[in-house]
Amino acid sequence: MPELRQDPSTKEWVIIAKERAKRPHEFQRPASAPRASVSGCVFCPGSEDKTPPELWRFPYRSAAWEVRVVPNKFPALSSEASGVRQEIAPLYHRMDGFGYHEVIIETPHHDRPMPLMEHEEVKRVLLVFRDRYWALREDWRVKLVLIFKNHGPTAGTSLEHPHCQVIATSIIPSHIRRKYEVATQHYDDTGRCIYCDIVHTEKESGERVVRESEHFLVLEPFASRSPFETWLAPLRHNSCLGRITDPELDDLASVLRETLARLYYGLNNPDFNLVVHTAPVEDETKPYYLWHIQILPRLATPAGFEIGSGIYVNPCVLEEAAAFLRGVRVEPAGRSASR
Amino acid sequence: MPELRQDPSTKEWVIIAKERAKRPHEFQRPASAPRASVSGCVFCPGSEDKTPPELWRFPYRSAAWEVRVVPNKFPALSSEASGVRQEIAPLYHRMDGFGYHEVIIETPHHDRPMPLMEHEEVKRVLLVFRDRYWALREDWRVKLVLIFKNHGPTAGTSLEHPHCQVIATSIIPSHIRRKYEVATQHYDDTGRCIYCDIVHTEKESGERVVRESEHFLVLEPFASRSPFETWLAPLRHNSCLGRITDPELDDLASVLRETLARLYYGLNNPDFNLVVHTAPVEDETKPYYLWHIQILPRLATPAGFEIGSGIYVNPCVLEEAAAFLRGVRVEPAGRSASR
Repeated sequence: MPELRQDPSTKEWVIIAKERAKRPHEFQRPASAPRASVSGCVFCPGSEDKTPPELWRFPYRSAAWEVRVVPNKFPALSSEASGVRQEIAPLYHRMDGFGYHEVIIETPHHDRPMPLMEHEEVKRVLLVFRDRYWALREDWRVKLVLIFKNHGPTAGTSLEHPHCQVIATSIIPSHIRRKYEVATQHYDDTGRCIYCDIVHTEKESGERVVRESEHFLVLEPFASRSPFETWLAPLRHNSCLGRITDPELDDLASVLRETLARLYYGLNNPDFNLVVHTAPVEDETKPYYLWHIQILPRLATPAGFEIGSGIYVNPCVLEEAAAFLRGVRVEPAGRSASR
Repeated sequence: MPELRQDPSTKEWVIIAKERAKRPHEFQRPASAPRASVSGCVFCPGSEDKTPPELWRFPYRSAAWEVRVVPNKFPALSSEASGVRQEIAPLYHRMDGFGYHEVIIETPHHDRPMPLMEHEEVKRVLLVFRDRYWALREDWRVKLVLIFKNHGPTAGTSLEHPHCQVIATSIIPSHIRRKYEVATQHYDDTGRCIYCDIVHTEKESGERVVRESEHFLVLEPFASRSPFETWLAPLRHNSCLGRITDPELDDLASVLRETLARLYYGLNNPDFNLVVHTAPVEDETKPYYLWHIQILPRLATPAGFEIGSGIYVNPCVLEEAAAFLRGVRVEPAGRSASR
């Protein structure tokens, strides 16, 4: 019997299509190893002049850089735009697209995606996340900072070299307003953050938990939209990525690397999107939201039904996916695994 | 300069990424012709026993059928489910997935997608749309009937034989509630249907119009989420697909075939989703909504930014796309075209 589940944070329903469900291992890709440095890669060392002028590098001024931040060469938003709204016809609002669009080149090594990095390398990228958050929200026009990663062609990137992107916008999207309405209503009813309540429920139940560390819970959400959707949520209430503490950040580096390695070895390096959800700048310290990382492997194709209804069909029983991921052996150094 | 535009019907913003934009013809696929009858196709004549027992065929009882309707063999929802909501933990709602899931086999011809059909063939499929709407809404538990078509692998189908799907649900999704909030607010402010106002604005301006017929307007919406998103909207206010009149249906068959042919010849048979948006059953006769057909070619990949923000990046200037589609020559019989 198919099952409908409601996402408590958005009120959207999801179909867990048990009859059409595949077993977790059926989502494995044919194995493929990352390729070594590809000639012509604009993010590899030696091609620094092929990116727009650098915003940041670590170590500072060192020729042998370990992380670089550069403006996106083809930005989706521009910091030179006015961002002034115009009503060009009744109902029709437009503006020049103000914002920032940056690229974080995570490593000089073309063939070292995050699941294969050392702890210190992942930690350095997370430090850049926190730094760029504060750097961009300094501009008073910035309302939202979104950090994300597209890994693999079906996840929307053609560039193989490990990188993340940062986009800062001057608008708060309707999509996010909607989540806030639900969260604010819950707070008004209970005096609690709805996301913290979800984390608490998951921690107690355990059946959708992949891993619990000192500061984070890794889980498959109750109404996952697609197979192996995975959240990393802090155990301490905090709306804002920028306000992560040093001990939390160190722990997150370890948990994030390990989670990505479980997916990498368990499913043979699937394409995925990673999104850092954090409160709009104006809500940084409010009690309604919990910042978290969402990882979405691209293992199902939303089609006409999803477009029309907003109801997603998930062809995987997610409690089985959680058990599968718990069972993937990942060595602490992050170099090898077998089941 | 990139441009942000707000969808008046959802209040979501879209980025028209002019710097990264491609010209319309750059979205053309390498040409590929549909294949003839593939052995093993479960929808071809001779394989009638490979589908679940038929619900409907035209002509009635004729061995030489022209359209068949069958239950989906792997349904996303089941008419045997209770559909009773359960709260299995605080905040966590679930139910057995009640609903209907049917397949409309549009033609016995494996190699005749809708843009290559004759007028009468398209009209017959649209008659089935209207009939299935009324048949399914007879069940008092049905709240929404969604008809859609997935064409091609990137649009979510592996079956090449021309077919549509129908899903009826016992829930009204949050996604649709949200559109109703916007539409109801507009009605309360103005006494008019927001969609009719949009159609009127587009008709007056003309720059995003692909074609106007006696009863329908074909347009690229002002805040299209992806290249060549195309709407077919009726010129007469009507919330409900089921209430389309015979003359409108005849006209729609002609306009739909022609629109699909413009996309087929202009872009070389792109993968696409087609969604029939119609009001929930309880709102069939209300003045807030306008039923319409949305065609979404799969020419851009939503990635981390879209997932996180709900803001879509459209790499095509849609007024150029409208002009491009207007320029595609489609012969009335639907058999040939050249630019």
